[in-house]
Amino acid sequence: MLDLDFHPSGRHFLQIPGPSPVPDRILRAISLPTIDHRGPEFGALGLKVLTGIQTVFRTRHPVVIYPASGTGAWEGALVNTLSPGDHVVMYETGHFASLWAKMATRLGLSVELMEWSGEDKQLPHAGGWRRGVQAEQIEQRLRLDTQHRIKAVCVVHNETSTGVTSDIASVRRAIDAARHPALLMVDTISGLASVDYRHDEWGVDVSVAGSQKGLMLPPGISFNALSPRALEASQGARLPRAFWAWDDMLAANKNGYFPYTPNTNLLYGLAESLDMLLAEGLENVFARHQRWAAAVRAAVQAWDLPIQCADARVYSPVLTGVITPPGVDADELRRLIYERFDLSLGMGLGKVKGRMFRIGHLGDSNDLSLLATLAGCEMGLRLMGVELAASGVQAAMGYFSAHRPSSALRKVA
Amino acid sequence: MLDLDFHPSGRHFLQIPGPSPVPDRILRAISLPTIDHRGPEFGALGLKVLTGIQTVFRTRHPVVIYPASGTGAWEGALVNTLSPGDHVVMYETGHFASLWAKMATRLGLSVELMEWSGEDKQLPHAGGWRRGVQAEQIEQRLRLDTQHRIKAVCVVHNETSTGVTSDIASVRRAIDAARHPALLMVDTISGLASVDYRHDEWGVDVSVAGSQKGLMLPPGISFNALSPRALEASQGARLPRAFWAWDDMLAANKNGYFPYTPNTNLLYGLAESLDMLLAEGLENVFARHQRWAAAVRAAVQAWDLPIQCADARVYSPVLTGVITPPGVDADELRRLIYERFDLSLGMGLGKVKGRMFRIGHLGDSNDLSLLATLAGCEMGLRLMGVELAASGVQAAMGYFSAHRPSSALRKVA
Amino acid sequence: MLDLDFHPSGRHFLQIPGPSPVPDRILRAISLPTIDHRGPEFGALGLKVLTGIQTVFRTRHPVVIYPASGTGAWEGALVNTLSPGDHVVMYETGHFASLWAKMATRLGLSVELMEWSGEDKQLPHAGGWRRGVQAEQIEQRLRLDTQHRIKAVCVVHNETSTGVTSDIASVRRAIDAARHPALLMVDTISGLASVDYRHDEWGVDVSVAGSQKGLMLPPGISFNALSPRALEASQGARLPRAFWAWDDMLAANKNGYFPYTPNTNLLYGLAESLDMLLAEGLENVFARHQRWAAAVRAAVQAWDLPIQCADARVYSPVLTGVITPPGVDADELRRLIYERFDLSLGMGLGKVKGRMFRIGHLGDSNDLSLLATLAGCEMGLRLMGVELAASGVQAAMGYFSAHRPSSALRKVA
Amino acid sequence: MLDLDFHPSGRHFLQIPGPSPVPDRILRAISLPTIDHRGPEFGALGLKVLTGIQTVFRTRHPVVIYPASGTGAWEGALVNTLSPGDHVVMYETGHFASLWAKMATRLGLSVELMEWSGEDKQLPHAGGWRRGVQAEQIEQRLRLDTQHRIKAVCVVHNETSTGVTSDIASVRRAIDAARHPALLMVDTISGLASVDYRHDEWGVDVSVAGSQKGLMLPPGISFNALSPRALEASQGARLPRAFWAWDDMLAANKNGYFPYTPNTNLLYGLAESLDMLLAEGLENVFARHQRWAAAVRAAVQAWDLPIQCADARVYSPVLTGVITPPGVDADELRRLIYERFDLSLGMGLGKVKGRMFRIGHLGDSNDLSLLATLAGCEMGLRLMGVELAASGVQAAMGYFSAHRPSSALRKVA
Repeated sequence: MLDLDFHPSGRHFLQIPGPSPVPDRILRAISLPTIDHRGPEFGALGLKVLTGIQTVFRTRHPVVIYPASGTGAWEGALVNTLSPGDHVVMYETGHFASLWAKMATRLGLSVELMEWSGEDKQLPHAGGWRRGVQAEQIEQRLRLDTQHRIKAVCVVHNETSTGVTSDIASVRRAIDAARHPALLMVDTISGLASVDYRHDEWGVDVSVAGSQKGLMLPPGISFNALSPRALEASQGARLPRAFWAWDDMLAANKNGYFPYTPNTNLLYGLAESLDMLLAEGLENVFARHQRWAAAVRAAVQAWDLPIQCADARVYSPVLTGVITPPGVDADELRRLIYERFDLSLGMGLGKVKGRMFRIGHLGDSNDLSLLATLAGCEMGLRLMGVELAASGVQAAMGYFSAHRPSSALRKVA
Repeated sequence: MLDLDFHPSGRHFLQIPGPSPVPDRILRAISLPTIDHRGPEFGALGLKVLTGIQTVFRTRHPVVIYPASGTGAWEGALVNTLSPGDHVVMYETGHFASLWAKMATRLGLSVELMEWSGEDKQLPHAGGWRRGVQAEQIEQRLRLDTQHRIKAVCVVHNETSTGVTSDIASVRRAIDAARHPALLMVDTISGLASVDYRHDEWGVDVSVAGSQKGLMLPPGISFNALSPRALEASQGARLPRAFWAWDDMLAANKNGYFPYTPNTNLLYGLAESLDMLLAEGLENVFARHQRWAAAVRAAVQAWDLPIQCADARVYSPVLTGVITPPGVDADELRRLIYERFDLSLGMGLGKVKGRMFRIGHLGDSNDLSLLATLAGCEMGLRLMGVELAASGVQAAMGYFSAHRPSSALRKVA
Repeated sequence: MLDLDFHPSGRHFLQIPGPSPVPDRILRAISLPTIDHRGPEFGALGLKVLTGIQTVFRTRHPVVIYPASGTGAWEGALVNTLSPGDHVVMYETGHFASLWAKMATRLGLSVELMEWSGEDKQLPHAGGWRRGVQAEQIEQRLRLDTQHRIKAVCVVHNETSTGVTSDIASVRRAIDAARHPALLMVDTISGLASVDYRHDEWGVDVSVAGSQKGLMLPPGISFNALSPRALEASQGARLPRAFWAWDDMLAANKNGYFPYTPNTNLLYGLAESLDMLLAEGLENVFARHQRWAAAVRAAVQAWDLPIQCADARVYSPVLTGVITPPGVDADELRRLIYERFDLSLGMGLGKVKGRMFRIGHLGDSNDLSLLATLAGCEMGLRLMGVELAASGVQAAMGYFSAHRPSSALRKVA
Repeated sequence: MLDLDFHPSGRHFLQIPGPSPVPDRILRAISLPTIDHRGPEFGALGLKVLTGIQTVFRTRHPVVIYPASGTGAWEGALVNTLSPGDHVVMYETGHFASLWAKMATRLGLSVELMEWSGEDKQLPHAGGWRRGVQAEQIEQRLRLDTQHRIKAVCVVHNETSTGVTSDIASVRRAIDAARHPALLMVDTISGLASVDYRHDEWGVDVSVAGSQKGLMLPPGISFNALSPRALEASQGARLPRAFWAWDDMLAANKNGYFPYTPNTNLLYGLAESLDMLLAEGLENVFARHQRWAAAVRAAVQAWDLPIQCADARVYSPVLTGVITPPGVDADELRRLIYERFDLSLGMGLGKVKGRMFRIGHLGDSNDLSLLATLAGCEMGLRLMGVELAASGVQAAMGYFSAHRPSSALRKVA
């Protein structure tokens, strides 16, 4: 048997902002025998997941499911809609926004990376990584582009590296206000199914998502939700594409099938995930994550440590970044916490490496698993010699005790 | 898919003193296809588990594995060694000791139930349920039985209903001191594989155990570890028996088989459990439970609530009983904690119903899952209006931070 | 990982008459985490399986579910209804009938074992093992018992050792014709959920069944379906009982709970099994087994080997016994087939050891898995040097091709 | 629970040439909880699978593992080594070879598709789909390319659409004989781990493989095995690439990690698969498939139906294509077989649609599962009115009986 936890006993606490803890039901579902992806049962499964995922994206338009992890869906969004040398505006809100820009450059696009221009005392070199997309900045930029050389605006909805959830509707309003035809592409890899997301209502052209976050699946499948304009753009787009091509995909999807071998067993998991999410109700799912996030922030505030996200309007319901005091290496802290308490936390990435850590509060979690997580953090911080203003665990317990969850128990009288 | 948790999200915290949380490896093992219980693979499996379980009981003598839950193994111990009307001495340390006595009576034995005779201020009606077996009392009783009418002394090693771990070696010494031939039968259902237990060294004649506690399996199989004297007694014993009969069992076990259909899939789990426990080392397993128990007691003491076990020498490493303040119904408290925090705690049974609850700290657990458990208790107590002297969670965090576990990580440099 | 098949590749063919092949859905269900057997989810599960199993037994009266394998349910039937020395009539139709009689004797009952008295040329020493219960013989015996010393008539519905399905309704008619008050107890361990069975309509007082046959579960739970007269008898019955006692069981079952620890994970499997069987419809399930049996018999007849069951009216739909030609050791044959073709067949038991083998056609099977089984038998027979009249595989293929199954595909257009 | 088989009972026979039947051990392994792909346990897992897969490819050079299904690995091979407009020679041996060519064209390469030029009476329009790669044709073509405009020769090792296993070593010899610098790229998606394959010895520059064939995993991961020359070519290659880029991959792989989120749970399955394959020994694995293939061909020959592969030297050990008689629609036949016998067969693809079907004999199979498969085909053919010369099932039974497998049982005395 594989040795997947080097600790002698107990269940690992996977509190990184994805992969999220996978429910037992889903793990059982993905272990069912692989079926013929051209047989009748597969067609029924395909139609079920293709329809269900539309509900989660809140779209009436097609959603492409790739048998590839999330990074692939980024590539799918770009190569289906753009041509070599096309100019795109991307907005750096964190590490994943910058990685997407790096990919776009690598694929031969001309990338203009915008950034927040203010001053941040806590992290002077990474102030933009503490805020969301500034829609007015984008509007100004687009107004200048009178020749419409900018083909797309690409933003990250929920920045997994920082814990900032940008206001996507405001970006759409900015594009419209500038009367600019650029496509709006949004990475909601770590947002979808945890935070409110409205592909159609917000006028998103391509939404990119993955399986291992709010959908509570292992990694391995990813998504492109499309708009009619995105589909139109794909007609003329000249970046080479084959695996990622939407046209073959959509043709085969009509009957629930795929043009090449799909990731069958993860689709079993997706069917189970959709059953769970839609039974609970998306509104309840979102409220659940908001409540968890509030409790975790109450803990960080009790510790009197700075939250990575400096703008309370865009706190992420999915994860919370915590800045460690000067001199405390966040990676050493994480390692100590992992070794002593069997808890995985997210590391600081790129510009904030070693300066912060991330607490995931998404997926198959509950009040007690988050309190356990906060207890692990609190013990680790103290063992590293950090003076804490107060107990964050107590603060979170107070919050949870005072705020009932919105989703009721299913059947208890 | 079965709805096994009425809460909308997250993993249930099963912190009753058994069934204990089952490791993922074991759950996967028991889901493997059932094999022919008369085929060669089964013989290899049978020999593996029959040998491995001897190591856990610390015996060189045979161990019988019943395809029945633990209550059945109690019956097995009695019907194989005794005859109708035989007189047995049992010692009431709690609910399960009294249930065993009830069973013995039902089976037609003459049961003499001994009890601690002191006074207990906290629980005047159940003072004996706060202490372990008093060996000297047994010794006195046996000395009076000059005609050796008493055929067996039956005691519970780890009282699951109270959190008291009696000193079995002292009972053996008492019997020997009285030069009495009574058999010593011990229920270690919730003790085995969590607390030090030595069938041979302590001179136990029949040890009774189950699968769903320290062995970390689902319920469904149970054990009788035997001594040569127990086997001898079984020759003359006249209580009717068939399913529980040792003779057919031992004959078939020689080659790893069973006289009737065994519980094959749970035996897969037992093989996996033995692999895990013996790889960690029983000494490490016991130390792990002792450390957890110390942290849980630190929490209860911080709350300033009485521990059910009033004698610190016999605190159970497996569970801790907590007495609620007068006027606080422990079952209402447990229900509130279950509903709000998805945590199952053990109820007060029999004489202490509603007066106490039990925290299991056994099986596939770790520091953080126990802190989560204590957080659930602490929030529940406060929501019930109980004034707590201090935070038990903080106390337990302090204990865990100050005391490293004995078992090291497996492979981390 | 456990090594449960010594063959290097492929899936083992488990074609013994139980444990039967377990469906993948059920194996996944039993691997879900163990829950608190006193919590609300368990109550819902308990009520579901207790109600569902009544439908399978076709009874409106209570069904007891033991956390023990089938042999235990035999014991449950006897000790709840009878007193030491009670006289019971049992009818030897094969090995399991004789084992039940052996158990009854061991438990202190006075057993009168009836047998078919004719002559059988094929198996002179075991002619009774080739026929069903002869109801008129029972009627005659009961008429002689004018003092009603006979307290129970015990028969096996589907003899797992021979492949004979006795006519239970005729036994009830015989008892009634003799106006005798004896209880009717029936072992339908390998019949239930594969062959038509009607506890109430046939006037059975205690029906005994197990999990690992038609219910398609691993072994480990077993059943007693009761009649009002059986319950009445249990009031005065004086055989000692505790684990098997119905009274405590029925009291706790009212709310879906059990008096001692149940076999929780197998109950998950039972819930899944009931979902599957009732969705297909019991009539379809029975027709499915009849069709398989007909095809298997067509094969044996093509080989021109004698079928163990000599009376075509009582051929079992669950298994078929095949008598090997003189000089061909059936156990050597089975061993060769196991080693070469990864196929487990049932051995000849007791009086017919080495003289016959048994082909199970029950549980999670289909036409092709049975043809594979027959192919394994046919190759094995030829490798042992047996001259076969014709190919049984071809005969069975012919049968299957000519006879459509009654259960339709679920959703194919 | 997902409804993955519309048939009421039994296990589906998945006898398409991939996805192949997945062993139970592997299905259990992929259901273990997802871990942090940046944690220490993942590093150990990563190193294990990256090293193990080299053994299977028989290479000392790096193997890239993509979290994408096999089609993606084709794209990886092309985009990492070639530049827009590069001229490549591909050899059409079947549908998958032609799809690879279609992809190359789509990616902006100049594709020259070679073909067998002889005449085939059976399938005049698809004669090339009945033979392997003709190395001498390639050699001639390369000799003409004195300016070395041809950058790569791409061939399919085991054509999944036809059942032809081309001689890769002969292609390498052809390239060398022509003293041509073209890279040799080989699709062994359905060959690896079932048929002998030697990446280094045969001088392959990029080998492409997938998980769902000989590796016996569900689909979802795929492979590029590299040569030093391929790595060198990747330095100058100018096709845009990001997700598929080798450079980031190899850098991260050094310590067992991946540059973006890997398909963690399928990697658990890969670890288990490698354990199984290497324990059996690759030579035994290959012999096993050869033996199965011989038996299946014996059946087809008994039926007197033409085998799709017309050249006995290149019969595939992995699958066998069977041409249906004129007037018999192979897809209707497959549908009848699926509905009546719960057996999935491979369809005729592209040029041979409706004219043939494919029997997969790979993955977790054994003699009996293949005989079941042949029985399903034989009954289906007869039900469609096809006159068969003789029973193929009998022929295959004869073959299996006469030829012992090379891999012995593991532990039976």
